[in-house]
Amino acid sequence: MKRIGMLTSGGDCQALNAAMRGVVKCLSCSGEKVEIYGFLDGYRGLIYGNYRMLSGEDFSGILTKGGTILGTSRTPFKLIRQPDENGIDKVEAMKKNYNKLKLDCIVILGGNGTHKTANLLREEGLNVVTLPKTIDNDLWGTDMTFGFQSAVDIATDAIDCIHTTAASHGRVFIVEVMGHKVGWLTLNAGMAGGADIILIPEIPYDIDKVIEAIEARDKRGCRFTILAVAEGAISKEDAKLSKKEYKEKLKKSPYPSVSYEVAAKIQEKTGREVRVTVPGHTQRGGSPCPYDRVFASRLGSEAGKLILKGEYGFMVGYRNREIVKVPLEEVAGKLKMVSPDATIVKEAKMLGISFGD
Amino acid sequence: MKRIGMLTSGGDCQALNAAMRGVVKCLSCSGEKVEIYGFLDGYRGLIYGNYRMLSGEDFSGILTKGGTILGTSRTPFKLIRQPDENGIDKVEAMKKNYNKLKLDCIVILGGNGTHKTANLLREEGLNVVTLPKTIDNDLWGTDMTFGFQSAVDIATDAIDCIHTTAASHGRVFIVEVMGHKVGWLTLNAGMAGGADIILIPEIPYDIDKVIEAIEARDKRGCRFTILAVAEGAISKEDAKLSKKEYKEKLKKSPYPSVSYEVAAKIQEKTGREVRVTVPGHTQRGGSPCPYDRVFASRLGSEAGKLILKGEYGFMVGYRNREIVKVPLEEVAGKLKMVSPDATIVKEAKMLGISFGD
Amino acid sequence: MKRIGMLTSGGDCQALNAAMRGVVKCLSCSGEKVEIYGFLDGYRGLIYGNYRMLSGEDFSGILTKGGTILGTSRTPFKLIRQPDENGIDKVEAMKKNYNKLKLDCIVILGGNGTHKTANLLREEGLNVVTLPKTIDNDLWGTDMTFGFQSAVDIATDAIDCIHTTAASHGRVFIVEVMGHKVGWLTLNAGMAGGADIILIPEIPYDIDKVIEAIEARDKRGCRFTILAVAEGAISKEDAKLSKKEYKEKLKKSPYPSVSYEVAAKIQEKTGREVRVTVPGHTQRGGSPCPYDRVFASRLGSEAGKLILKGEYGFMVGYRNREIVKVPLEEVAGKLKMVSPDATIVKEAKMLGISFGD
Amino acid sequence: MKRIGMLTSGGDCQALNAAMRGVVKCLSCSGEKVEIYGFLDGYRGLIYGNYRMLSGEDFSGILTKGGTILGTSRTPFKLIRQPDENGIDKVEAMKKNYNKLKLDCIVILGGNGTHKTANLLREEGLNVVTLPKTIDNDLWGTDMTFGFQSAVDIATDAIDCIHTTAASHGRVFIVEVMGHKVGWLTLNAGMAGGADIILIPEIPYDIDKVIEAIEARDKRGCRFTILAVAEGAISKEDAKLSKKEYKEKLKKSPYPSVSYEVAAKIQEKTGREVRVTVPGHTQRGGSPCPYDRVFASRLGSEAGKLILKGEYGFMVGYRNREIVKVPLEEVAGKLKMVSPDATIVKEAKMLGISFGD
Repeated sequence: MKRIGMLTSGGDCQALNAAMRGVVKCLSCSGEKVEIYGFLDGYRGLIYGNYRMLSGEDFSGILTKGGTILGTSRTPFKLIRQPDENGIDKVEAMKKNYNKLKLDCIVILGGNGTHKTANLLREEGLNVVTLPKTIDNDLWGTDMTFGFQSAVDIATDAIDCIHTTAASHGRVFIVEVMGHKVGWLTLNAGMAGGADIILIPEIPYDIDKVIEAIEARDKRGCRFTILAVAEGAISKEDAKLSKKEYKEKLKKSPYPSVSYEVAAKIQEKTGREVRVTVPGHTQRGGSPCPYDRVFASRLGSEAGKLILKGEYGFMVGYRNREIVKVPLEEVAGKLKMVSPDATIVKEAKMLGISFGD
Repeated sequence: MKRIGMLTSGGDCQALNAAMRGVVKCLSCSGEKVEIYGFLDGYRGLIYGNYRMLSGEDFSGILTKGGTILGTSRTPFKLIRQPDENGIDKVEAMKKNYNKLKLDCIVILGGNGTHKTANLLREEGLNVVTLPKTIDNDLWGTDMTFGFQSAVDIATDAIDCIHTTAASHGRVFIVEVMGHKVGWLTLNAGMAGGADIILIPEIPYDIDKVIEAIEARDKRGCRFTILAVAEGAISKEDAKLSKKEYKEKLKKSPYPSVSYEVAAKIQEKTGREVRVTVPGHTQRGGSPCPYDRVFASRLGSEAGKLILKGEYGFMVGYRNREIVKVPLEEVAGKLKMVSPDATIVKEAKMLGISFGD
Repeated sequence: MKRIGMLTSGGDCQALNAAMRGVVKCLSCSGEKVEIYGFLDGYRGLIYGNYRMLSGEDFSGILTKGGTILGTSRTPFKLIRQPDENGIDKVEAMKKNYNKLKLDCIVILGGNGTHKTANLLREEGLNVVTLPKTIDNDLWGTDMTFGFQSAVDIATDAIDCIHTTAASHGRVFIVEVMGHKVGWLTLNAGMAGGADIILIPEIPYDIDKVIEAIEARDKRGCRFTILAVAEGAISKEDAKLSKKEYKEKLKKSPYPSVSYEVAAKIQEKTGREVRVTVPGHTQRGGSPCPYDRVFASRLGSEAGKLILKGEYGFMVGYRNREIVKVPLEEVAGKLKMVSPDATIVKEAKMLGISFGD
Repeated sequence: MKRIGMLTSGGDCQALNAAMRGVVKCLSCSGEKVEIYGFLDGYRGLIYGNYRMLSGEDFSGILTKGGTILGTSRTPFKLIRQPDENGIDKVEAMKKNYNKLKLDCIVILGGNGTHKTANLLREEGLNVVTLPKTIDNDLWGTDMTFGFQSAVDIATDAIDCIHTTAASHGRVFIVEVMGHKVGWLTLNAGMAGGADIILIPEIPYDIDKVIEAIEARDKRGCRFTILAVAEGAISKEDAKLSKKEYKEKLKKSPYPSVSYEVAAKIQEKTGREVRVTVPGHTQRGGSPCPYDRVFASRLGSEAGKLILKGEYGFMVGYRNREIVKVPLEEVAGKLKMVSPDATIVKEAKMLGISFGD
């Protein structure tokens, strides 16, 4: 018999349930007897021993369900080694609970921060298998993460809706897409939605180039312009600041987000009316798209297979169209970013999309 | 032969094209010869004689298309009697262009402001037929406006997405729904999305009652709470202010909108994390829902029928499941609001929804 | 304390769960103590005493869920008075189970057949409250049934998809829409999807008129034609047959359904390629649309109110924009059909839609 | 200046317009002057010299539009060398028209059959660049084709809808998914929709194994079973027949398609009610999904790049996450099938999905 722990950590996204269902279906079909211990609300559940025993039925009908049946929370890695407000050593507590339940391993679903902690637990001797969850698609070691394509769909829907209203009013519209550090989501949703200008963290923008692109459209008789702007878009000047300086600048900014600053600058320099729309957390929610359901199920089943074979210390990833196991130490702490020279960026430019660079 | 002018004014919404297609299809099928003059960008097109001749082909394939093929703009009624920056008398200019083109009538699609100007043009002797367009469903004289149900669908989609993420994180979430003056959209999207608390302009809220409702859910073991808050939601104290006083208060407010103020107060008084999502202009855009397509087509065809009979000075509306013609003077300047005693409000309360009152 | 039975009968549809949730939320919020007995698989559950006690939690999160958590089955009214294969008197068995559980009343959700049996149970002394469920919108006594608008959405989606492919290939396409006896669904989906020809049971068609309409489109340069055809569409000649004669004719027909027969005739007489698509049972499934969620919740809450007041023997319906209680004896056995002279039919014709009549 | 011909051939699919827009946007943005000759209705347009000059405006706003603005038709490769009914040599006619218009090259969008003819034209000396369009994803030389993911989305939607109704009624349901020769679409939609049994052409099924899988679900208490069955699913016995024998068997079959035969056999052997749903041509239609929009745009832009460089005789494909040019002679006449040993098939089996083998 196998005793498997499971938890979802970090911001939630689509297909978390699909992935967990995949793990459990694979284990159940194997003939091996398994007990599933679902820790509630991310690492918190593991720290404080808050869990539920889960049966096959708990995983039935959740393939299409957004969110996570286990709940989740953000537990910043930089605080993980610090005792909590009651002096409890979090890492020791997690080890203790893991050992107390005599777990064979723990399956952890999460993004970047989550993987740092997962790798730490591995170093501490726990048997860990992870699955790459994030709408940002910024996890190192895998070409794709689940949640990403579903988020692209929702952000694209938003751009589609804005398109008709922008065209009717002849306006400049900014759709702010999630992504503080990387631009995959903005880039893909922008291309899918037919955005004219795409601003992402990896390619700092020059506001004059942005305005040039808008005015070039004007001259061609296009009455409106759509910008897809990542939360973490940054201007060329700001990109020269140190991280600390930039943080402080942001704090003092009168704008709720970078998009509003871009909007203000365009409005000021061109006199045109600019509107901002922020689909926000909707991008994390709702039913996973078919792509993510298949992808997460496949990863889940492969995680199940690793567990059956007793191979631990890996993230199940996707590379060159193959599902692979990636050592956790290779994943943790690295970010997969959009290269300004990436083929897809070049193609976007060939399509006439401006990056303001 | 009939010479028909046509324009769309005010904020755009779904099914404007469907409605215009309905008018033109009806006229074309009647055997009567017609010429369609499409004025561009709302009343501005009529004022400055900016129009396009439209053929049947222009209306083909637009049933499902959001926005308006004529473009639109906001032309505030209170400025309509004032000359423009070049001293042009707008009303006279509109009359002149109407007469110059020897129009038999003009079809005007719009909401509240639009109808005030439409009624003025009627008083000035123009033959006017109007169609009730607005996502707010606040037009007097009709039970329903097109655009409304499509906007409900989009706002509900947003709440659905937020639902899964709110549940996963155990958070309080506010979805800000369009509607500065009336709450139909928020009320319906809130009920459809399973919101726990709905705040609308017509029912001023008491923040303590709102918090009570959240805490009652906590006690029942519900980890999360969803609020659907109209842009124009107002607290009981603020409702006591004069319009002018309230406007000034809003100006000085540190919050981008009322939703953020509600969020801040809940956070402050309960210590809970509260997030705000603003689907914003997406609610006006995208393809009209099937309900709106049928409804707008029906209204359009009845407008065509009125034109064929030479009956002018009416809005084509919908009352008690019948399509009716409503004299423009009855429509203009009135607002159809949600009564705090309305059956649907009582039903929402029976379902356990709090209005914070 | 109230002891409430509940069952869903007949073909399933969207918003059954939303309606039941509405009833239960209303009862729970009233302060009254209630016990809910959910009978499984329609009347069968009541006949054989197959039920589950349901708590508030069972109704949480089901607002957006298609199908019915109670299961359903078809129990034809004409067999209800006949003993089952083991000689059990069904009506007596239902009464016995009702009395054994000391129910205060039973809430029955269903369509036409269901209402006949519900009325019979009322005559037999049971306290019955019903809710109008059907994608066909053919229930007497209510302007609208839940499930209808969701089905319109799905059928319209199908027509939308067919539209692009029909246009690309220049083909004649038939989309067969559910509805053996009435044409509301086909009429509305057809209008929403921009169908050129709509065939419904209430308006027998003349195949030559249908072909005429196709050829008229050809002449106008329209490369393709879309027909929305109800399952129960009938030709003028067939409409002259007795019910029995027609049934026999159908049995001997080489075509899987009327749509295929229409397709074959068009193909034969015009030489054009005709394709048939049958969305079928998908029209009953999936998440209810926002309209249905609000509508079903409202009806459910009003049913709860009736129960609290002890008013039994009614269907909760919707008439002239008000929610009303309709005596069951008025509902049972009657069909709400599309009148060939209905305003909406006239409007459809004004839009250039042919009914082949 | 470049003179570019363009045509779309074979069954239409989503993102054809997006791909053509990609080519044209790339060419327009390059600064090079181009003339676009759009041949109508596939190869027919090239054979009979039926074309339209296209401007940049024709490609504006079509990113999200299903179908093809050029129209399409099926021109079987095996007939391409035969003269038409008027004795016209098709290949010569195509060459003549190509030369008459002094084309620099012709861009051809299509699937398997289309590529055979495209390769023939290349052999005949025409400059050809092709793009891989098909919902079947069965083109050799590319990991992915556009149209595929959109079709997966629609087929999955259908399965989702059927899921709720199957569960409510406790029925066995078959959803017939497009694919006469290959099973990619059925496999992916089946996995995404949570189908319990998937039957595809590449893995012949044993009806007893299928029934076993249904009965195993029964025993586990699952009231319903969903089968995703490809149009070209084949039983183990039938797979032993020669192609000709099987064709004749199909001709004599009393069933409209294999799905109905499978349904009849299950019904007969188990006594269970089995329903079949055929989403059919809807799978080809409607707006392309965001994935396909991005993918088709990228391929289109790369095709534009090849044209600018004067590199002809290639299909633009996608391999190991890179966009590549594949010599046409490598593509033509080969089929990319699902291997019964493919990882994804193994994973599906690990998830408990039966292939009836």
